[in-house]
Amino acid sequence: MSLAQVAAKIGATLAHPEDADFIVQDVATLDKATNDNLAFLDNPKYRDQFSATKAGAVIIHPDMAPFAPQGVKLLLTPTPYKSYALAAQAFYPESRPDAHISDMARIHPSAKIGNGAYIGDFVTIGENVVIGDGAWIESHAAIGHGVQLGNNCRVGPHSSVSHAIIGNNVRLYPGVRIGQDGFGFAIDPTGFVKVPQLGRVVIGDHIEIGANSCIDRGAQGDTTIGSGTWVDNLVQIGHNVKMGRGCVIVSQCGIAGSTELGDFVVLGGQVGVAGHLKIGSMARVAAKSGVTKNIPPKEEWMGYPAMPMKTFLRQTVKLNQLVQKTKV
Amino acid sequence: MSLAQVAAKIGATLAHPEDADFIVQDVATLDKATNDNLAFLDNPKYRDQFSATKAGAVIIHPDMAPFAPQGVKLLLTPTPYKSYALAAQAFYPESRPDAHISDMARIHPSAKIGNGAYIGDFVTIGENVVIGDGAWIESHAAIGHGVQLGNNCRVGPHSSVSHAIIGNNVRLYPGVRIGQDGFGFAIDPTGFVKVPQLGRVVIGDHIEIGANSCIDRGAQGDTTIGSGTWVDNLVQIGHNVKMGRGCVIVSQCGIAGSTELGDFVVLGGQVGVAGHLKIGSMARVAAKSGVTKNIPPKEEWMGYPAMPMKTFLRQTVKLNQLVQKTKV
Amino acid sequence: MSLAQVAAKIGATLAHPEDADFIVQDVATLDKATNDNLAFLDNPKYRDQFSATKAGAVIIHPDMAPFAPQGVKLLLTPTPYKSYALAAQAFYPESRPDAHISDMARIHPSAKIGNGAYIGDFVTIGENVVIGDGAWIESHAAIGHGVQLGNNCRVGPHSSVSHAIIGNNVRLYPGVRIGQDGFGFAIDPTGFVKVPQLGRVVIGDHIEIGANSCIDRGAQGDTTIGSGTWVDNLVQIGHNVKMGRGCVIVSQCGIAGSTELGDFVVLGGQVGVAGHLKIGSMARVAAKSGVTKNIPPKEEWMGYPAMPMKTFLRQTVKLNQLVQKTKV
Repeated sequence: MSLAQVAAKIGATLAHPEDADFIVQDVATLDKATNDNLAFLDNPKYRDQFSATKAGAVIIHPDMAPFAPQGVKLLLTPTPYKSYALAAQAFYPESRPDAHISDMARIHPSAKIGNGAYIGDFVTIGENVVIGDGAWIESHAAIGHGVQLGNNCRVGPHSSVSHAIIGNNVRLYPGVRIGQDGFGFAIDPTGFVKVPQLGRVVIGDHIEIGANSCIDRGAQGDTTIGSGTWVDNLVQIGHNVKMGRGCVIVSQCGIAGSTELGDFVVLGGQVGVAGHLKIGSMARVAAKSGVTKNIPPKEEWMGYPAMPMKTFLRQTVKLNQLVQKTKV
Repeated sequence: MSLAQVAAKIGATLAHPEDADFIVQDVATLDKATNDNLAFLDNPKYRDQFSATKAGAVIIHPDMAPFAPQGVKLLLTPTPYKSYALAAQAFYPESRPDAHISDMARIHPSAKIGNGAYIGDFVTIGENVVIGDGAWIESHAAIGHGVQLGNNCRVGPHSSVSHAIIGNNVRLYPGVRIGQDGFGFAIDPTGFVKVPQLGRVVIGDHIEIGANSCIDRGAQGDTTIGSGTWVDNLVQIGHNVKMGRGCVIVSQCGIAGSTELGDFVVLGGQVGVAGHLKIGSMARVAAKSGVTKNIPPKEEWMGYPAMPMKTFLRQTVKLNQLVQKTKV
Repeated sequence: MSLAQVAAKIGATLAHPEDADFIVQDVATLDKATNDNLAFLDNPKYRDQFSATKAGAVIIHPDMAPFAPQGVKLLLTPTPYKSYALAAQAFYPESRPDAHISDMARIHPSAKIGNGAYIGDFVTIGENVVIGDGAWIESHAAIGHGVQLGNNCRVGPHSSVSHAIIGNNVRLYPGVRIGQDGFGFAIDPTGFVKVPQLGRVVIGDHIEIGANSCIDRGAQGDTTIGSGTWVDNLVQIGHNVKMGRGCVIVSQCGIAGSTELGDFVVLGGQVGVAGHLKIGSMARVAAKSGVTKNIPPKEEWMGYPAMPMKTFLRQTVKLNQLVQKTKV
């Protein structure tokens, strides 16, 4: 692909128009790239790698152009990481298996499966399941009675899905657990009394749910995940959680029952959020925080218990001063 | 079901006896209920929903009766959540599949399976396994050699069980891992030396183990889970942990090897407990705490490292004061 | 086995040579051992059990000899836990099933499987997979296209492996997820843009990966796990993490993308490490810490955010003093 073609695909401009016909063979990292590779610089931590790179061309923010080593061609864009993502997609278009239904799958005769589906070995598909066009159901997946999946969904090996309505272009990674009963019981001296879990999990479009993550069905009403939300591995989402659009939930977070997240909320890794809270749209919570209060929209919080980031940092500075002054 | 019938089933009393013949069609949440639905109020956070509810009847604590909107029938009980649980059970009795053994399961001829069992597709059941009456083994479960399950157990899809003795009315959620080797090795400069894991997992009666949770077999002696204990999703229970009766272990907790919990211990979400500790009966640990010491019975602890709740709160107040006074 | 034979196998010496012919029937814990059992004392917490033990013989550090109860034979070694591990291995040599390939497995004709392999029921093995001699692939495992496993590997039930090169003597526990896409996307107001994940997972020799743990494939380049490293249950290892030799990663840790660990690094349970960091060889991080900075080799860190252990402890002492002095 010529650099001009790449630039057009990724929304970047050539620093030097005379590089337009330079041919790029592959994408690579700054430190591994060779002279026909395209690399990128996004995280400033890697500026030294940029200065020493042998890449033929690099995608960078215009501000970084002065640090470019001699002879490296430059593609300029205010969003180098997004542009790299688009370049990598161009070099490595997603492949998927041809349509196929395994003779070792167990599919209920009442299930409806769309055109072009791939159903792997040892998959189970229950009564009245509806699966859209272009599905890719990997080996050993278990799709329970009445589940609906939209078009172009991918379900990873060993995933289990029950009591769920899932939109289009959703990807469940291996070992995902969707739709099991939530943790609901009334505590009683004579033994806990189970609260029947009657709701569903409703998942929008363009969503990824990471490996071994769990999303419980609603107790009453539904657990909902808004379109465009990405959930990493080993995340726990309790019953009746409502999550908006475009949220990012990093690995090993836990969100307790009935908590509501607005749109574009970001939770760093291992964050815990207590139940029955409201986290406003565009709020951000630093990794490993423990959230025990509502967070207003657009605020950044941190700590255990979590507090606004400014308060956390001011407290940390002051405590350090106090500690410095104290003589033991 | 008439309100009088419901009241009898759930241990509540009618605020107004003349409501006895009112017919309830379903249970619902306060905000979604219609005029033939039964709702409940337990968490005071939802009192506004109570005042605005369109439910036909509501289960409440007698103290909340004055806040009831006009025309709503009231069922009074000191334990509204438990009563709701019983009402929901009455409207939605647990259903289970009819007895059936899949022709696509692999069951060792020496295994003994009780009456009325349902064995799903692609299940494996090993040598000398004993499974009680009324078992419900969902698809893709793997029950290893010599495992014993009592009556009325349910094993979720993709669960694996080995080296385990399990009582009656136990439910394992999808992806549960029971009986694998614990994390046991001697550190040595020439490479770690594995310590053979020789014990079992012994699980009592009326227990639920949440999705993708892990319980390791004992190194020597057994890992034990007392009757009536509920474990949420993604919990880690190390080798030789001893857990008493009626404990509640919320999602993503980790309990390190050889630690002992008494009866009715409650661990909030994401709590970590170090190894070789004793947590007394009825102790409670707040979410996300890190426990490094023994906790006496009935105490409430919090923090990292965890300390008695009172100490934690006093410290927090004082530190806030110190920080307020400090000028930067 | 005679005590002299045991001593030779485990690198210990008899406290009293006249005990050489004493016959040991089994290994056991101090509190459960009977008079023909061999126990050990390593953790000083259990010294009381040692003084009261009914074991016939005990493996101990020479310093503990004075606390031995009357009549108990003693095996002396500076490393009692390692010696116990070797003794237990002698009494309980690892057993494995005979060579066998299930007629209910789905193995691609192009896959190469070494001598003596056991392939369980409902296993899937993809195109061009290479599996070494002595493999033990348990039921329901899914080995994706092109994966390579060395000799004497064991893959637990319901594990999924893709895009991976795995060495010899590697054990994957049940439900392990290896090689799925990492959490990589560029954030964009019009919807996140997926960054194609193009790398592999490269795993050395003599490694254990605990139940339900996840290791993502590299985005570009590989995620690598050095030989002799042990990973516990429910651990998350992000894309492009590089881990050295002999590391110990305790349960529920999370290591974010591109972070590098040297050799013999120890992370306690529930530790979180941010992305793009360097943790030096032989560094140790206390359980539940949140690491946000590089850690130099051999240092011990703790806290949230993590700091050198000495700083953490000094700070804790001083803060306690300040709090004591403050009057409310």
